[in-house]
Amino acid sequence: MIVVMKVGSPEAEIEYVSKEFQSWGLSPEKIVGKHKVVLGLVGETAGLDPLQLQEISPWIEDVLRVEQPFKRASLQYRQGEYSEVAVATPNGVVMVGKHHPITVVAGPCSVENEAMIVETAKRVKAAGAHFLRGGAYKPRTSPYAFQGHGESALELLAAAREASGLGIITEVMDTADLDKIAEVADVIQIGARNMQNFSLLKKVGAQDKPVLLKRGMAATIDDWLMAAEYVLAAGNPNVILCERGIRTFDQKYTRNTLDLSVLPVLRNLTHLPIMIDPSHGTGKSDYVPSMAIASIAAGTDSLMIEVHPNPAKAMSDGPQSLTPERFDRLMQELSVMGKTVGRWTEMAVAV
Amino acid sequence: MIVVMKVGSPEAEIEYVSKEFQSWGLSPEKIVGKHKVVLGLVGETAGLDPLQLQEISPWIEDVLRVEQPFKRASLQYRQGEYSEVAVATPNGVVMVGKHHPITVVAGPCSVENEAMIVETAKRVKAAGAHFLRGGAYKPRTSPYAFQGHGESALELLAAAREASGLGIITEVMDTADLDKIAEVADVIQIGARNMQNFSLLKKVGAQDKPVLLKRGMAATIDDWLMAAEYVLAAGNPNVILCERGIRTFDQKYTRNTLDLSVLPVLRNLTHLPIMIDPSHGTGKSDYVPSMAIASIAAGTDSLMIEVHPNPAKAMSDGPQSLTPERFDRLMQELSVMGKTVGRWTEMAVAV
Amino acid sequence: MIVVMKVGSPEAEIEYVSKEFQSWGLSPEKIVGKHKVVLGLVGETAGLDPLQLQEISPWIEDVLRVEQPFKRASLQYRQGEYSEVAVATPNGVVMVGKHHPITVVAGPCSVENEAMIVETAKRVKAAGAHFLRGGAYKPRTSPYAFQGHGESALELLAAAREASGLGIITEVMDTADLDKIAEVADVIQIGARNMQNFSLLKKVGAQDKPVLLKRGMAATIDDWLMAAEYVLAAGNPNVILCERGIRTFDQKYTRNTLDLSVLPVLRNLTHLPIMIDPSHGTGKSDYVPSMAIASIAAGTDSLMIEVHPNPAKAMSDGPQSLTPERFDRLMQELSVMGKTVGRWTEMAVAV
Amino acid sequence: MIVVMKVGSPEAEIEYVSKEFQSWGLSPEKIVGKHKVVLGLVGETAGLDPLQLQEISPWIEDVLRVEQPFKRASLQYRQGEYSEVAVATPNGVVMVGKHHPITVVAGPCSVENEAMIVETAKRVKAAGAHFLRGGAYKPRTSPYAFQGHGESALELLAAAREASGLGIITEVMDTADLDKIAEVADVIQIGARNMQNFSLLKKVGAQDKPVLLKRGMAATIDDWLMAAEYVLAAGNPNVILCERGIRTFDQKYTRNTLDLSVLPVLRNLTHLPIMIDPSHGTGKSDYVPSMAIASIAAGTDSLMIEVHPNPAKAMSDGPQSLTPERFDRLMQELSVMGKTVGRWTEMAVAV
Repeated sequence: MIVVMKVGSPEAEIEYVSKEFQSWGLSPEKIVGKHKVVLGLVGETAGLDPLQLQEISPWIEDVLRVEQPFKRASLQYRQGEYSEVAVATPNGVVMVGKHHPITVVAGPCSVENEAMIVETAKRVKAAGAHFLRGGAYKPRTSPYAFQGHGESALELLAAAREASGLGIITEVMDTADLDKIAEVADVIQIGARNMQNFSLLKKVGAQDKPVLLKRGMAATIDDWLMAAEYVLAAGNPNVILCERGIRTFDQKYTRNTLDLSVLPVLRNLTHLPIMIDPSHGTGKSDYVPSMAIASIAAGTDSLMIEVHPNPAKAMSDGPQSLTPERFDRLMQELSVMGKTVGRWTEMAVAV
Repeated sequence: MIVVMKVGSPEAEIEYVSKEFQSWGLSPEKIVGKHKVVLGLVGETAGLDPLQLQEISPWIEDVLRVEQPFKRASLQYRQGEYSEVAVATPNGVVMVGKHHPITVVAGPCSVENEAMIVETAKRVKAAGAHFLRGGAYKPRTSPYAFQGHGESALELLAAAREASGLGIITEVMDTADLDKIAEVADVIQIGARNMQNFSLLKKVGAQDKPVLLKRGMAATIDDWLMAAEYVLAAGNPNVILCERGIRTFDQKYTRNTLDLSVLPVLRNLTHLPIMIDPSHGTGKSDYVPSMAIASIAAGTDSLMIEVHPNPAKAMSDGPQSLTPERFDRLMQELSVMGKTVGRWTEMAVAV
Repeated sequence: MIVVMKVGSPEAEIEYVSKEFQSWGLSPEKIVGKHKVVLGLVGETAGLDPLQLQEISPWIEDVLRVEQPFKRASLQYRQGEYSEVAVATPNGVVMVGKHHPITVVAGPCSVENEAMIVETAKRVKAAGAHFLRGGAYKPRTSPYAFQGHGESALELLAAAREASGLGIITEVMDTADLDKIAEVADVIQIGARNMQNFSLLKKVGAQDKPVLLKRGMAATIDDWLMAAEYVLAAGNPNVILCERGIRTFDQKYTRNTLDLSVLPVLRNLTHLPIMIDPSHGTGKSDYVPSMAIASIAAGTDSLMIEVHPNPAKAMSDGPQSLTPERFDRLMQELSVMGKTVGRWTEMAVAV
Repeated sequence: MIVVMKVGSPEAEIEYVSKEFQSWGLSPEKIVGKHKVVLGLVGETAGLDPLQLQEISPWIEDVLRVEQPFKRASLQYRQGEYSEVAVATPNGVVMVGKHHPITVVAGPCSVENEAMIVETAKRVKAAGAHFLRGGAYKPRTSPYAFQGHGESALELLAAAREASGLGIITEVMDTADLDKIAEVADVIQIGARNMQNFSLLKKVGAQDKPVLLKRGMAATIDDWLMAAEYVLAAGNPNVILCERGIRTFDQKYTRNTLDLSVLPVLRNLTHLPIMIDPSHGTGKSDYVPSMAIASIAAGTDSLMIEVHPNPAKAMSDGPQSLTPERFDRLMQELSVMGKTVGRWTEMAVAV
């Protein structure tokens, strides 16, 4: 930590502040600049809050953090080695990570009925997807909108898993539902709106299934990695980060702004695998293919694509869902791009 | 709803779309414009999703909603009459609403120990506050930061309530904790990070204590009112909306951007009472007084101010907390402003 | 400046970096932390760019600026003394600044014809305004919208000045128009869209008339003060800062988000006088009065209010303009608030 | 336009509003909905401002635009045919557009001296670039930072053009400098900060050289296309749109957020060619390559990349500049991606 004293700080105050920091077990080193005095704090500062330190004296102008606030999520924590998440699915273990082929998650926003989810699972499996997504519990802006079929949808997901061999990714919204979701899901999703639901983060961190952590609508990179840190600190090392668009000043043509620069940025900061969701990221099915292709070009480890057998009749998120036919074509396009970057296998899954 | 067809839409497609809407029980009325055809949909459209309607045909360019998405939260729902929230406290019933004197909530970010919370309660009571705030469960960006004392802090809040007679406002973060919090709290707070934790909203909506709903960091006015709608639709009519700053592109000098224009905007849209939290809204105690005063001038019903007996030693949010002395002075300043706008009583609470 | 070296930086690299800084005339002081080494740079660093310094070595993780980037605009530059801008008007000198009564600028968005601008001038003068605003050159989003009457409108402003005795504030958009505008205007406005039109800033800085500098739609506080610094550095000390709302993620009910927290923030940073424009800040006349009143409560030095004799027929910005009748009433409301804060004179102008 | 009347609007008011619109030459068609009445306005509405219409009556709740605000920039204006911009360079005509190979613009932020600009031009030409960028007039946040060598730099650009055969792209900041810049430049750049400098837009629209229009930091897609409309309406059809990152809430790791979704969005809206600038878009040279590659995958027509012979000593924008060696490698990577999407020629320029 670097403590910047205001111009004209009395010598006595600087002394006082230094002593105060010493009493906290830190060694303050003083640098007398042309206009200002700064104190470099040497010691265990990771747990300290810069804003808190600033309260010690009204003569402190600013406190600058030199260390990153996240530890277990940092690339340094693993000495620069990227982690991988291994997911056991009926079709075999699927590896998600920088040194593995790209994995594709596909499926509808919500599980609507058995026929539709089983059909969709088979279709996306045939097209080459590795995981089925499908919501049992749905976070909806309106209380009057379809809220998901809940517990009964979990059984339908289990049926689709059985029928297709695909791993299941589904969202948890309430700590009370976690156990029953974890029985069916191969990966548990934390949605954007719950990215800072810390109770939920702690609880998914205390169980074994891998966690897909979506970025919050207004979450900075640091906020996001700190949310991952909650899961990691609670004991679960298997976290996948999923970018799904952020909220900006322009929402006329896209629901969110898909931030693909997270790919090179996160690679510098964290060892965790990365997924991109261009369906939520743009909110419009027309825009999904080019953003999916660009994600592979920019280095993503995984993609999440909404697919619905009949988007016009979907109970949620129809406008951003691809038809199975369009998804088939997209998988062909993705395979071309995946091969260009050397990260595609026709059969990524050992049957 | 208004459906805008693309330029050059074939007549047959317009027919098809119209028939489709008729099959949904809606009456589409066609307007042939100079370049485009639009269909006005007459009927029960409140539950429909504009994005969903758009999926009916690729020739639909846009679907515009004419109705507000919220119902129970709307001012029209109460024929233009503003609602009030009555809170029973040991000191008597405190009314929060547009036709009542301004109420003030004060207290520390976290409950740290019995002495500090009881002392603070007495101090802010003496200064004229109506409610004590204090966190038992704390949402913190870092898992390594102080997370609140949890259940044991609830007992300390009960002691402070007893000692001061003030009503208690404290935050719930997990549906599992709601019952025990509701035993102590007079008003239950939903924090900004949980504004779209819909499980939690439904659950606080299904109990009796009034709910303080903080605006999410990137929540639009509509998002916020729809979150209130969750509570109202679940049966609890006692919701207070609390603005606490939004996230914008500039976070150097203030943590958030306090959006005081919500005051006139919400008055046009909703009957619910409004509170402003300049402590979180600015993140810096220096900026709290002028923003608190401005809030009263702009018409707020209530204020939430962080006060800590020793901000420099606070376990959370020290930088935005006032000392009890500064709070005393602020209450004097607020009383001048409150009298100017005709909404101040020296003893707002019937003892 | 503080230079933070990456974890594991080789000693030789730290040496190299230190030598490099010495060759720039700076004294680097090394602090060896628990994980990282930081270098404090002592010397003349104000003109240096932190990003530039970072390029010296790939082992530099970050460069943190300790000094503010602005000088002449800073409060320290005037040893904590706030500046005032004196404007000579036909009615006498009007002082704008923290130690003077609040000044009010009123008038239409655009000058439409002689009758309307002269009538408006007289009306707002009678209501107590000190300056007349009115656009001759108008920045419009669409090339097909009314662009202002240009040079001929300047004559009409001169006539309104003569008729009312009010000082004139009007916008310059092109360096080529500055001289003729300066002949008529008492204060020259730089609009939000030109806040970083540096050619224009230099040119208004090189002439004598006071400058009203509107904040850009996405300008940080630092950007804004650096724009002021351009004018000050070019030799013109008479700059008034005008907040007019920033662009955020919610534009449904207000065109911009009026950031009233600039009032306490700027007071800590700069000596320059501050004006608030709630008309552009909200974009809707309904919301103007409460935000104007709140601005006074929060400490503004001045207000800019759009007034039009017939908003429904205004050639631009009608929706945010008050009628003269509503403005009369607002001035009564403002006088109550102005007296409460001790900054109102019925006749602020010496005739 | 669609006019939405408030719930409970008196019949007489609806009559009045309808008559008013008729007097404007529009035909209002009334639709009586379940709760509200809406009026569809048929006629020439493109030049009308929805906010203005709303002023006609306090009973009007909202006015919704059905038409796009831009005309000449729209894809419909050219019946769905994409335009191309032909630039005459010493090496031959370079075509920029959707049906042409990808073009690459490279070079330093600022022209520093003859040797550096000529050397850089030759290097980037050898690597395959089609245009040289280099600033003579530089928009800098600080008045104390290097402002560009101005007119003398134009001569150096002419020398680099001569030596390399590359076309020159350089920025104009002031209408007064346009003529001399147009003598040297093959494409004239409008920078992000001047995107709504309407005087400048009109003036570059009134001359013959193609215009590169950078997106403003907080410009919506509509704002950007309306800025292009200014140039087109003034008579210059040769406009290239350049995305360079927008300002969002997170600026810690990237200076801006590069919005690659503009690629599919703009393709649906406009016929104009598109360029992506990942150097400004990210602000950090490390992140440029992956974003450049992703831009090609997502369908860009052109790229702008900052290259400097010695980024650590660059007078501006060093941190985001590639070394010539890194640029050589990037061009190899881009050629792989360009061939994958079928838009790359080793010799894109006819000599």
